[in-house]
Amino acid sequence: MGVRERLAELGLTLPVVVPPVGAYVPAVRTGNLVFTSGQLPMVEGSLPAVGRVGALVTPEQAKDLARTCALNGLAAIEALVGLEAVVRVVKVVGFVASAPGFIGQPAVVNGASELLGELFGETGRHARSAVGVMSLPLDAPVEVELVVEVTPAEVELVG
Amino acid sequence: MGVRERLAELGLTLPVVVPPVGAYVPAVRTGNLVFTSGQLPMVEGSLPAVGRVGALVTPEQAKDLARTCALNGLAAIEALVGLEAVVRVVKVVGFVASAPGFIGQPAVVNGASELLGELFGETGRHARSAVGVMSLPLDAPVEVELVVEVTPAEVELVG
Amino acid sequence: MGVRERLAELGLTLPVVVPPVGAYVPAVRTGNLVFTSGQLPMVEGSLPAVGRVGALVTPEQAKDLARTCALNGLAAIEALVGLEAVVRVVKVVGFVASAPGFIGQPAVVNGASELLGELFGETGRHARSAVGVMSLPLDAPVEVELVVEVTPAEVELVG
Repeated sequence: MGVRERLAELGLTLPVVVPPVGAYVPAVRTGNLVFTSGQLPMVEGSLPAVGRVGALVTPEQAKDLARTCALNGLAAIEALVGLEAVVRVVKVVGFVASAPGFIGQPAVVNGASELLGELFGETGRHARSAVGVMSLPLDAPVEVELVVEVTPAEVELVG
Repeated sequence: MGVRERLAELGLTLPVVVPPVGAYVPAVRTGNLVFTSGQLPMVEGSLPAVGRVGALVTPEQAKDLARTCALNGLAAIEALVGLEAVVRVVKVVGFVASAPGFIGQPAVVNGASELLGELFGETGRHARSAVGVMSLPLDAPVEVELVVEVTPAEVELVG
Repeated sequence: MGVRERLAELGLTLPVVVPPVGAYVPAVRTGNLVFTSGQLPMVEGSLPAVGRVGALVTPEQAKDLARTCALNGLAAIEALVGLEAVVRVVKVVGFVASAPGFIGQPAVVNGASELLGELFGETGRHARSAVGVMSLPLDAPVEVELVVEVTPAEVELVG
């Protein structure tokens, strides 16, 4: 079953690509890799929650937000090369705006990692870093960036 | 117009490569990618400003510092492979030392992104993450790292 | 002298791969690159120290912990492709959980960088970013991720 069927099965729709909040683009391809920009958990143009995890935002809320970040990252990849081109999710970095003393970043970033597993299966198994930071753009509680490997451009031209 | 002509037109001179402040090197090439080290906004061996953005350092100052970080990153790339070899700026990560509550990281890191756009045009359009961190080496307000794609080594040998 | 002989000479043994603390894997290969997950300084399943550097943890302790992080990263690479496959250490990112005002991240992350230099010599010379963050998973004082270039898969099949 392809990633598009899995999205449907999970009741998910890829969102519109979130416009960058600065002088950059949502994702760039180089060779067989696509690097996405750090994705905020925007939903239809605004953040469902703001503030630091462990203070204004609970870990459970933040896990949902991390899932949204990942979905936004996939939307950026879809727009650039199409999700079918993804042969491996390589790397996820999850930045969690953390109140002093909050050390539950792994469970938060699991919101992104688990979505990738649900959608891609083995292909979705990635290396990951999770860190707790002071603050994030627009006061977002979470920011997630993705690196994925995609099929060679030659294959796409033939396919 | 090449990147070198654009530098001249902007009245910019590439600085001397900033010596690493630890047991590492300014940039490494692997295949067609060059990864730079995190660049501090050093100018002739010292930091023009120190402290966190939103406290001792204003966002406007920090944006200028981010531009300096990017220029130092380009100097590292120039020394390794020559700026003419750059075919795409792939990824920028901007770490902004942030006072509690400061959430204007995107505008700060635009200092780096806009310079890359001015110098490289379409080639300079990159993916980006901007995060607010507790503190940075030497109390720098900003640190910027770059990933760029360069021409294959074979082409360089011929050229 | 190979990396395995250097390990022995330094009296080091690669640890067992640290199990991920979330829905991810210790390392992923894509083309000739291996990206490791962010490595915590786990020793036999637990952290030798917790808390922020500059408060509960001294810079000297943290430097030792960064060395342990790097060793754990090498264990992940060993398990995936074998350390002999490493032809270049490309990039190190060191996240240091930092008390307000702590700006000595470079000396801390040198614990990782110096180990890589001791083990790999010229091959170990890498680009690096060091940043001070609010907090890290499990209250770890340091987290280190590695990107290394490895021999092409074709060569491995022949070798």
